[in-house]
Amino acid sequence: MRLAELSERSGVPIATIKYYLREGLLSPGRQINARTAEYDEEHLRRLRLVRALIQVGRLPVATVREVLGHVDDDGLPRTIRMGAALWALPQAPEPDEDDEHVRGAHETADRLLADLGWTNAQALVTISPAYRSLVVALAALRRLGYDWDPQLLLSYARLMHGAAVLDLDFVETHASEAEKVETAVLGAVLVEPMLQALHRLAQEEESARRYGFA
Amino acid sequence: MRLAELSERSGVPIATIKYYLREGLLSPGRQINARTAEYDEEHLRRLRLVRALIQVGRLPVATVREVLGHVDDDGLPRTIRMGAALWALPQAPEPDEDDEHVRGAHETADRLLADLGWTNAQALVTISPAYRSLVVALAALRRLGYDWDPQLLLSYARLMHGAAVLDLDFVETHASEAEKVETAVLGAVLVEPMLQALHRLAQEEESARRYGFA
Repeated sequence: MRLAELSERSGVPIATIKYYLREGLLSPGRQINARTAEYDEEHLRRLRLVRALIQVGRLPVATVREVLGHVDDDGLPRTIRMGAALWALPQAPEPDEDDEHVRGAHETADRLLADLGWTNAQALVTISPAYRSLVVALAALRRLGYDWDPQLLLSYARLMHGAAVLDLDFVETHASEAEKVETAVLGAVLVEPMLQALHRLAQEEESARRYGFA
Repeated sequence: MRLAELSERSGVPIATIKYYLREGLLSPGRQINARTAEYDEEHLRRLRLVRALIQVGRLPVATVREVLGHVDDDGLPRTIRMGAALWALPQAPEPDEDDEHVRGAHETADRLLADLGWTNAQALVTISPAYRSLVVALAALRRLGYDWDPQLLLSYARLMHGAAVLDLDFVETHASEAEKVETAVLGAVLVEPMLQALHRLAQEEESARRYGFA
């Protein structure tokens, strides 16, 4: 397809597509003469991903370039490739390891992973931004005087594991390895806001069921 | 307790507490002489809440004041009081109702609520920011060519309902009505980042289980 059709099918203005091409976020089309290039379905898919990361995920162009670099690195095994792409997304800041609440949060998080039997996640604690985010969130709660009941934390973790199983089942419905990794990245950017909205809606529903509106 | 002890027990600097007092985010202590006021456990609890909303939730002072106004409005029944406090938190922007993807997203969201039998949430669709956030998230996915399998969406919603049940069970462990509403607000600000971190950790665990690291 030509640039105009790519723009129409993706809903992305031509000027924006040209900008993405200049920034290397989209690979060049096949040049069919000096003024015209031809684009294919893979360009369309990539354009949608870039658009989602920039418009919905609000990622800066440099971060998008880094994420795409991992998505395209087909020398890596799938877990590492997905992980690298996901880990390039914005993450919680480094926790302050000298803070007593951070140390307490590490203990809570480590016990949680042990109780869950998440041995793979345990193997990744020194490098995983998700683990770091969990420690930051738990430390913020401890600082406010909330120490979590380990059973409650376990129950939340099991629910989120259920969500992860759904995520990966959906990723696996895609045929190619590139699409699988792309879908995992899109999921992180687009599914999380949906889950948050569903969580708040469920709170409204449950609260009204328990206490009514009166 | 005196101001110095309030500061020490909360971890909030004295100058910051004075600022919150001036801004009306914290009610004045009981004046025991011209220079000294006495604070109680309720001040401590409120101070922690204000701190969480500002430091972790990054809410502007005016928003915090609005949220607290609802928390303190004990003329309201609990569902409405919680709802008002939660709805004063920052929310997704208004969806553009002229956009075809937004219209499609409304259909998907409405069918979801009907399939779930969430009749209370259905009664709130015209005013609920959570419903609006869901429509925005679904419209973003549709714009990228992802139309959701209704069964998958149902499964996600049921998991988040499980989380909401845990949330409200925890809220109910608190004795006073004021603490219950405060806990619900804290939960929205502090539990959501924890759930997001658990979700990403679970994805790592599940991905490694399915595909290994090799």
